[in-house]
Amino acid sequence: MNRFKLTIEYNGANYHGWQLQNSAPSIQEELEMAAFKLCQTECRFFAAGRTDAGVHAKGMVAHVDIPRDMEAFKFMEAMNYHLKDVPISILHSEEVDEDFHARFSAKKRYYRYHIINRRAKLSLQRGLAWQIKEPLDVQAMQDAAQVLVGKHDFTTFRSVQCQSKSPLKTLESLNVSREGESIYVDTSAISYLHHQVRSMVGCLYYVGKGKWTKDDMENALKAADRHALGFNAPPDGLYFMKVEY
Amino acid sequence: MNRFKLTIEYNGANYHGWQLQNSAPSIQEELEMAAFKLCQTECRFFAAGRTDAGVHAKGMVAHVDIPRDMEAFKFMEAMNYHLKDVPISILHSEEVDEDFHARFSAKKRYYRYHIINRRAKLSLQRGLAWQIKEPLDVQAMQDAAQVLVGKHDFTTFRSVQCQSKSPLKTLESLNVSREGESIYVDTSAISYLHHQVRSMVGCLYYVGKGKWTKDDMENALKAADRHALGFNAPPDGLYFMKVEY
Repeated sequence: MNRFKLTIEYNGANYHGWQLQNSAPSIQEELEMAAFKLCQTECRFFAAGRTDAGVHAKGMVAHVDIPRDMEAFKFMEAMNYHLKDVPISILHSEEVDEDFHARFSAKKRYYRYHIINRRAKLSLQRGLAWQIKEPLDVQAMQDAAQVLVGKHDFTTFRSVQCQSKSPLKTLESLNVSREGESIYVDTSAISYLHHQVRSMVGCLYYVGKGKWTKDDMENALKAADRHALGFNAPPDGLYFMKVEY
Repeated sequence: MNRFKLTIEYNGANYHGWQLQNSAPSIQEELEMAAFKLCQTECRFFAAGRTDAGVHAKGMVAHVDIPRDMEAFKFMEAMNYHLKDVPISILHSEEVDEDFHARFSAKKRYYRYHIINRRAKLSLQRGLAWQIKEPLDVQAMQDAAQVLVGKHDFTTFRSVQCQSKSPLKTLESLNVSREGESIYVDTSAISYLHHQVRSMVGCLYYVGKGKWTKDDMENALKAADRHALGFNAPPDGLYFMKVEY
């Protein structure tokens, strides 16, 4: 039995998220189908994070046990061959010890949210970013973002479907920057609540367009109440970037 | 009658190029259909360049005469509304004099070719770049590119379907640079022969992977013979970037 750690890129637009579903296509299902073609047996994939429907990844990490004697590089090549018709690619593959677990061994997870701040709808980046018409004040967004950094009760920024035991999370960083018409929101943390990143970005959008102040952000956080949420950003702009172990 | 100069972005993947075709969808057709919905009469669009099937644009320029009294901004907004279901967006619109012609008034045209140099196939950038597996030597590509700069007989780099009267063209610049796994080939010229940019990029690919030297590039140019061409790069990575008037 070989355990492989895989770094995976995918376009989540046409998938109902990472996790296996009964009646909808998922990233996990595509990977397990490809591995089945390769190994003729069911191989379960475990990911560092379970991205939602429509969310993308540039560096998701997952592990899988393969009941075949195979080099990590050859496994990646064979998997990419079987994945050739779907928008999922394995970027890197390495053999790891049996005590490595993509989810439980993860020390830090990085997400990036990509906003395109312009009047015209998206053509080339359709489904790959969130287009916002109103001019956004990036400095105000960056200032308000700092309110959320640290250990807080993030109930306001938590989906009602969230399965986490506690709403307490420690946000390590949350930075907003502009490059031309693109605005990036970059965040790192050990872990997040369900919908936390999209909920934070939605509120930063309110700040950027002047509807909310930094104080409003602080009050929303302190309310610890989902009803205090400003807005939940669409999945299109969200990317799972990398994991530290 | 108002003449508008429009700056247009499009994803060319599912189109048979800019130019109106009898039996295949084109960018021009989509624009003319949208303008028809808006003006209830046929309006002809003239572009600075006629991109091929699969080629994209970030800043194509076109002009159109509109038989309605309408502000440039409102025209853009209404056009984008009618284009909402297709990957074509008008980024900028301005009223111009009747002696402005998107094609004939153009002084310089800029193209960018986007290569992604990595082993794994593309997921997020599928159809938006050319993936090349072999590691490419960007410095060698940049050196060899300089052979092509200046006024030359570009017959080697010309499609057999090219309608240009002369194979003599002046290439103003051709630069190859790397940013992470991306390699960009940027070029500017008054005008190009049909397939010239993709043919030049195809030969630079040969240089990058060590199959051709700078001398081979020089010999290919001097041959002035289509049979001396190394390779024609796929349309996926090619972007019409901007026009100077």
